[in-house]
Amino acid sequence: MELFYSSDIHDGIVRLDPEESGHCVRVLRHRAGDEISVIDGTGPLYRCRLTGDNPRGAVAEIVETLPAFGAHPYRLTLAVCPTKNIDRYEWFVEKATEIGVDAIAPVIGDHSERKVLRTDRLERLVLSAAKQSLKGSIPRILPPQSVRELIAGSGPETLRLIAYCDESLPQRTGIVEALADCRERDITVLIGPEGDFSPAEVAAALEAGFVPVHLGPSRLRTETAALTAVQAVYLSCI
Amino acid sequence: MELFYSSDIHDGIVRLDPEESGHCVRVLRHRAGDEISVIDGTGPLYRCRLTGDNPRGAVAEIVETLPAFGAHPYRLTLAVCPTKNIDRYEWFVEKATEIGVDAIAPVIGDHSERKVLRTDRLERLVLSAAKQSLKGSIPRILPPQSVRELIAGSGPETLRLIAYCDESLPQRTGIVEALADCRERDITVLIGPEGDFSPAEVAAALEAGFVPVHLGPSRLRTETAALTAVQAVYLSCI
Repeated sequence: MELFYSSDIHDGIVRLDPEESGHCVRVLRHRAGDEISVIDGTGPLYRCRLTGDNPRGAVAEIVETLPAFGAHPYRLTLAVCPTKNIDRYEWFVEKATEIGVDAIAPVIGDHSERKVLRTDRLERLVLSAAKQSLKGSIPRILPPQSVRELIAGSGPETLRLIAYCDESLPQRTGIVEALADCRERDITVLIGPEGDFSPAEVAAALEAGFVPVHLGPSRLRTETAALTAVQAVYLSCI
Repeated sequence: MELFYSSDIHDGIVRLDPEESGHCVRVLRHRAGDEISVIDGTGPLYRCRLTGDNPRGAVAEIVETLPAFGAHPYRLTLAVCPTKNIDRYEWFVEKATEIGVDAIAPVIGDHSERKVLRTDRLERLVLSAAKQSLKGSIPRILPPQSVRELIAGSGPETLRLIAYCDESLPQRTGIVEALADCRERDITVLIGPEGDFSPAEVAAALEAGFVPVHLGPSRLRTETAALTAVQAVYLSCI
């Protein structure tokens, strides 16, 4: 099954933009009357019948709406400091989308070597990964913010975890134990940069009510740690 | 910390091959008297003092042996059908090594599009990934075999799981539930090719005592499914 994306769906009529229209009509040779599947990124999958096969502006009508298509039973924000090598961050974003995440929050820590991040590439990546893995909901890419802003902006109704490496800091719980009963909950996991969080950032997070967790005995790169956190939430809820 | 690999360790004396010697002496500029860390791939980390800094044949003496360095509390074989795109298989092998796996068994299924696999690249990959992630034990790459041979060659003392997609086949347990009490155990997880196992292969596995498991609601590519299985074992044991 191939999914198309549209941001222009009104009154049961779906319009594809020139890029998606070209892919649908020119590449995949769909013609008026064919059935296609469309997402708008908010959750549902629309089964549609193509009514206009213009390769620069295809139009379809919705036949059936399947709600929460490919959804997962939790709402997860992964707040991760961008890696020096941006390919590794993009790899994480792609795999996290495939497994199941709702928002990616790029955060800049005191020890971050990379202080800026272009989010337009990540936007394209989550769209493509969501279509590829047949998900009706496309993860949001939040604007980059500092670790402190992320901490200050989250409330106690969310299960908030901070994973850090420094073993001299307060006792950490294994992430799986910290995720007991996480089904249907809002969850935020905060993952630091290559140089770990600063002690001041850890203190701010603990003060705000974040639960300190560890990710087990293996030394994981930032992007692997972030994916391990996604997997821990996913596996805890299945 | 940088790890060097040697297959030539006798009577407390470590000899590095020309490639490792060049990296140690020419690239990292280590000289006689420096301390270096060496693994032989079987588990320990050897803290050594360099006694000979020939860039084509460096020699060191062992000062201290740290057993089971970077070890994990389970023994896991991941039996995975090679993907069409071999880069994706290599990605899995690298990440699985970083998280913690003991053996990778490439298996060829009835529905496998790729029927042959060169294992020499995988051998180099696990060596490099083990050094990078500071593990004393290097995962073994088993010779390619058929899915049926893998099933026939495993005994009931091992916790054996088979993850397949076909929902019409016998009731599957969530992988986390199937891994309860997996600590310190021998575990084998069997992951099929892009086209899933054949019904005959599933029947053979169930007949042999494999536990049928699922990996949750997300549609995962072969290599992501395989990594999810590694994470499930890792996270169940931490």
